[in-house]
Amino acid sequence: MSLKKLISHYQQRVNAALETRLPADSIQPIRLHEAMRYAIFNGGKRIRPLLVYLTGQLFELKHEILDTPACAVELIHAYSLVHDDLPTMDDDDLRRGKPTCHKAFDEATAILVGDALQTQAFYILSHDISLQIQAKNRLNMVEVLSLASGSRGMAGGQAIDMAAMGQALNIAELENMHIHKTGALIRASVKLGALCNETIDNTTLEKLDHYAKCIGLAFQIQDDILDVEANTETLGKNQGADAVHNKPTYPSLLGLTESKRMAHILIAEATDSLNEFGTQADPLRQLASYIITREY
Amino acid sequence: MSLKKLISHYQQRVNAALETRLPADSIQPIRLHEAMRYAIFNGGKRIRPLLVYLTGQLFELKHEILDTPACAVELIHAYSLVHDDLPTMDDDDLRRGKPTCHKAFDEATAILVGDALQTQAFYILSHDISLQIQAKNRLNMVEVLSLASGSRGMAGGQAIDMAAMGQALNIAELENMHIHKTGALIRASVKLGALCNETIDNTTLEKLDHYAKCIGLAFQIQDDILDVEANTETLGKNQGADAVHNKPTYPSLLGLTESKRMAHILIAEATDSLNEFGTQADPLRQLASYIITREY
Repeated sequence: MSLKKLISHYQQRVNAALETRLPADSIQPIRLHEAMRYAIFNGGKRIRPLLVYLTGQLFELKHEILDTPACAVELIHAYSLVHDDLPTMDDDDLRRGKPTCHKAFDEATAILVGDALQTQAFYILSHDISLQIQAKNRLNMVEVLSLASGSRGMAGGQAIDMAAMGQALNIAELENMHIHKTGALIRASVKLGALCNETIDNTTLEKLDHYAKCIGLAFQIQDDILDVEANTETLGKNQGADAVHNKPTYPSLLGLTESKRMAHILIAEATDSLNEFGTQADPLRQLASYIITREY
Repeated sequence: MSLKKLISHYQQRVNAALETRLPADSIQPIRLHEAMRYAIFNGGKRIRPLLVYLTGQLFELKHEILDTPACAVELIHAYSLVHDDLPTMDDDDLRRGKPTCHKAFDEATAILVGDALQTQAFYILSHDISLQIQAKNRLNMVEVLSLASGSRGMAGGQAIDMAAMGQALNIAELENMHIHKTGALIRASVKLGALCNETIDNTTLEKLDHYAKCIGLAFQIQDDILDVEANTETLGKNQGADAVHNKPTYPSLLGLTESKRMAHILIAEATDSLNEFGTQADPLRQLASYIITREY
């Protein structure tokens, strides 16, 4: 299957899995559940769930087992987008061409949507029957996902980002921000997929983690590049928003050419760390390339 | 030990336990970690951790085992206060006589503080070595706490509360709001304490749950009563705030006398459900009485 088909296949799979893992919008409180679904079913690329599935595919694991961690990482990602878009944060009105959650509903609801989506991630990891692995490994998943998304991971990255607004960061500080803000959850996605293999050894885990670390950073560099190069229609959000907010970015610090070179080096390193895996790892290799060729 | 001494003893114990379960404010992102500590160490009564300890004490469990669930429920409670106080939610400037988190820091930080405190609750439940019980039971704790605090529990209760602002609720609707907003987490506190006993049976769990359900509702009724009767200094927040916000309360629906009678009936029911426990349950009985006699 080509990467494009794989992406589409797993997008559909995780959307169906999310459908059954969110409270129905027919049950109380209805408006909150509607808003949670609005925030989740918004045409997201589902890159993080894709990483869970493709990592699990390395070990020929059943998709039924991977569904829950795939949904959990997307719930965390979606919660962070809803909160990051709030007026007191990044103040974004559009997300993938549609009104952001606080615009479609209201700010109080958007705060609660983010809160409840986060909770739901930990609920499904602890609750879902389809996740047929030992309690010890499930608990390990809760630990990995919480560490990656808390103050020393994703939420901390957003705090660093907010503090950096209008500041002159150097490249090390910018990288530190992205390692937390987006990198931690991308690494957690690969690790959750890997932890579905109950017999995985530490060396294999470390190689996959290095792959995830490299693509995570490349992904962010490409995001910064797209903010400069892509047009608003393709991007689904306002092009040039970073410059307007005076946000430090790779292109603003290194220039476009050097940013692109850096992204390519990271992708080569990511691919290298998959050397000992066979053709089963081809989708992960293709995904690495896709990250720096995507246009939105 | 008198209840007053027990409360003070366990306040100190959970504060010390929280101290080691929050990231130090010397590590990055420093401002976020400072704000998380500001939100946690604010002179809170620690009623929810107390319930964890007193329930565990029924079974003579080690305090070391109870520390983690005690901290987890308080982290969830503290996160909800920080978010509920935000301008787009209840818009409170004072909490226990001190500026609320978004006043002492800023709104963006307060949103992230709530987010990260929630995450930390699930992190410590999955991570702490001191919680020496089987992985299966720990996972069960994650499930209980997440269900109680998500859209079908505490966060859902806040959504119902926001929607009710300025609305004419009847007593059943008001009760439904409180069962979610405060009741769910109080029940989870007792359940987490009980689940530290790995051999607990369902009948015992149900009796303790009924106790928790009754005191949870009584606690809220007393809160409403205090908002009418206590003065701002004792309360640590603006007295009469509910009336100003046109919030539906028990006194506004039933009158003060009937509200007090209802609270007393609930406390009698809570005490009844402890009938089969011996003197070990005396602190839980005293706590039930304290809930309706407290002045702040």
